[in-house]
Amino acid sequence: MPGTRGPRVAMLSVHTSPLDQPGTGDAGGMNVYVLELSRALARRGAEVEIFTRATSSAQPPVVDVQPGIRVLHVPAGPFEGLDKNDLPGQLCAFTAGVLRAEAHRSEGWYDVVHTHYWLSGQAGWLAAERWDVPLVHTMHTMARVKNAALAPGDVPEPQGRVIGEEQVVAASDALVASTREEAEDLVRLYGADLDRIHVVPPGVDLDTFTPPVPSDATARTALRERLGLPVDSPLILFAGRVQLLKGPDVLVQALEHLPEEVRLVVLGGASGRPTAVRELEALAHQCGVRDRVLVHPPVERRRLADWYRAADVVAVPSHNESFGLVAAEAQACGTPVVAAAVGGLRTVVLDDVNGVLVDGHDPLAWADVLGALLADDGRRARLAAGARAASRRFGWDEAAAAMLDVYAQATKRRPAR
Amino acid sequence: MPGTRGPRVAMLSVHTSPLDQPGTGDAGGMNVYVLELSRALARRGAEVEIFTRATSSAQPPVVDVQPGIRVLHVPAGPFEGLDKNDLPGQLCAFTAGVLRAEAHRSEGWYDVVHTHYWLSGQAGWLAAERWDVPLVHTMHTMARVKNAALAPGDVPEPQGRVIGEEQVVAASDALVASTREEAEDLVRLYGADLDRIHVVPPGVDLDTFTPPVPSDATARTALRERLGLPVDSPLILFAGRVQLLKGPDVLVQALEHLPEEVRLVVLGGASGRPTAVRELEALAHQCGVRDRVLVHPPVERRRLADWYRAADVVAVPSHNESFGLVAAEAQACGTPVVAAAVGGLRTVVLDDVNGVLVDGHDPLAWADVLGALLADDGRRARLAAGARAASRRFGWDEAAAAMLDVYAQATKRRPAR
Repeated sequence: MPGTRGPRVAMLSVHTSPLDQPGTGDAGGMNVYVLELSRALARRGAEVEIFTRATSSAQPPVVDVQPGIRVLHVPAGPFEGLDKNDLPGQLCAFTAGVLRAEAHRSEGWYDVVHTHYWLSGQAGWLAAERWDVPLVHTMHTMARVKNAALAPGDVPEPQGRVIGEEQVVAASDALVASTREEAEDLVRLYGADLDRIHVVPPGVDLDTFTPPVPSDATARTALRERLGLPVDSPLILFAGRVQLLKGPDVLVQALEHLPEEVRLVVLGGASGRPTAVRELEALAHQCGVRDRVLVHPPVERRRLADWYRAADVVAVPSHNESFGLVAAEAQACGTPVVAAAVGGLRTVVLDDVNGVLVDGHDPLAWADVLGALLADDGRRARLAAGARAASRRFGWDEAAAAMLDVYAQATKRRPAR
Repeated sequence: MPGTRGPRVAMLSVHTSPLDQPGTGDAGGMNVYVLELSRALARRGAEVEIFTRATSSAQPPVVDVQPGIRVLHVPAGPFEGLDKNDLPGQLCAFTAGVLRAEAHRSEGWYDVVHTHYWLSGQAGWLAAERWDVPLVHTMHTMARVKNAALAPGDVPEPQGRVIGEEQVVAASDALVASTREEAEDLVRLYGADLDRIHVVPPGVDLDTFTPPVPSDATARTALRERLGLPVDSPLILFAGRVQLLKGPDVLVQALEHLPEEVRLVVLGGASGRPTAVRELEALAHQCGVRDRVLVHPPVERRRLADWYRAADVVAVPSHNESFGLVAAEAQACGTPVVAAAVGGLRTVVLDDVNGVLVDGHDPLAWADVLGALLADDGRRARLAAGARAASRRFGWDEAAAAMLDVYAQATKRRPAR
């Protein structure tokens, strides 16, 4: 990697585009991660090209997002109707598209391949080998972790994914974990070489996710009115994809045991099964809390901050999270978080400092914690202050600086492999 | 392709090795096809390298089968326990191995990539594009054909395979069909360009599969005794993988309606479900014919000819066959074939000339046809003569000559694409 210019990064995100709206389908924290990391890298002089599978004929083949960031939509399979389980069969087509793009460049164009999720890792493995550049991989989620903490009724990840992940771990010159917990999982469950793991906490967009100004009751009432939310009810916000992994059903069931006036706002769309939202609504009906659950489709990121600010508590009952971006963003907005004590959430949420951690997913336990916190204005104010302070740990500029260092180390390490 | 030497062919057979024993697991007619075609091509001066996924630590990375034929076992995923459904996830690893092998050669080593089955087509598509050489593809089986004629209880092929097949059809410079029926399916079901389809009937090893000498009753008795088969019973032979697609259950059920002395010999092992053979035996028990069904594991090809010779009739009740190698081999041994009137079997078996075609898979209809044929020595003798004559249509040398012509045409066509 020459010192006179920033590195040229081939960023691979096969199955979900950084230009997609997060909070529905396959688009979640990873999309935000890829785009925000790329932005911060570009600010530091890197040239980032993000390769993602084309999923609509309306997408131009190349989108110049901003100076230093280009998104390339690679045709590989039909735009719509391709099941996620059928994506592995499209990796040859996708990889061919990536290699083709490089072939139009002068030789040795890219300095590093950074892949996200195992599918991209498979494609990037081949590309990095052909180009003789380091492969840097971020898992985001791991089949073995997910399968060990499966939500009741959820389907285990197939063995083919486990095998694919093992290969990518073995082939990577550097593995990026968001938290220490993720690094430990990589070593324990995938036999990763500790020397090649780098913990780089992802950032939170601290310009977008800020505490409310002014923060008085009048401003908050106006905000809730603007969002169409009940002004006087205690509000619990769930923001994320509606799928078993994220545990929204735990909150619906907990609501039954919370005071009548408490409302749950579900901000997100179906993922996995297209009927996921309707199933959640049916569960609410069954629990007798249907009129206390407000479902709203996901919103743009710059509007999302207002939803965090409008809530009394943001709940993150996921069965697993490698980081838990929603928790970090909510904290940056000064809203206390109640989160499951799993994965990266244990790094983001410090119990009784900037939020509360709950063991397990028993709706009664969640109702206890949520009820107590909603009833205690003083404690919420203390945790809100802690949340704002803690969020300063997570900045994308710091993340990008650390990532450039990872790229440099991987480049140095590569000849020795 | 230079005229002074034979072409260098990269032959891709991802999911099944030509060195495997056919008749069990995933090994069937395609294995024979790849190996025999390669042999015949080598005899005509081609240099063939067959790439297949390594499935055992006992396999050497490179096996020089004979001058002009080399088998390369490419590591891609675990040796054992990889489900066929998880193979698409290994295509990047496999393709990387193929590209790596080429990188060790002098530039422009291979003249053509010939792929077998859609998985290989996906890998070969990428390789041919990188090397800028023509892609020649043989489908062997097609998801849309299989799904249209699904055996009762069999599972449809996934959409991901259909999509993958469509891509390979579109990307191929030449498509090789074994029969006119297969060519029609390619056009009708996959929108293939007729100009790029070449019908090349596969060969039968006419040195191995020959009529019995001597062919008198004494020799036949000795042969049956040697194979451990009943000497005096009318014998129906089923040779092939025990799986619903191949329809052995039809024969077991037909046996119930055939004279008491008729025996069914099932020569083959389980495919798909490991319990397939036991399930067939259970069905026989249920039909009250368990002691009339003899199950024997698949045998080497040079011994297989004796089994064809020992039978009175060879039955091929498949729900689909792109060619039907078993029928052609049995005919070469002078044994009449009773086959389902599907796919390539309609090319190989000429009704009442060298065998009998049966519409559908009704066990009663099969019992009628088989019973009548077993009772009519004169007709069997006439069909046996027809079978021997017809088998001369299928020679591997002719197939190899035709294939070299396909390679040459694909090479000429390529720049125009």
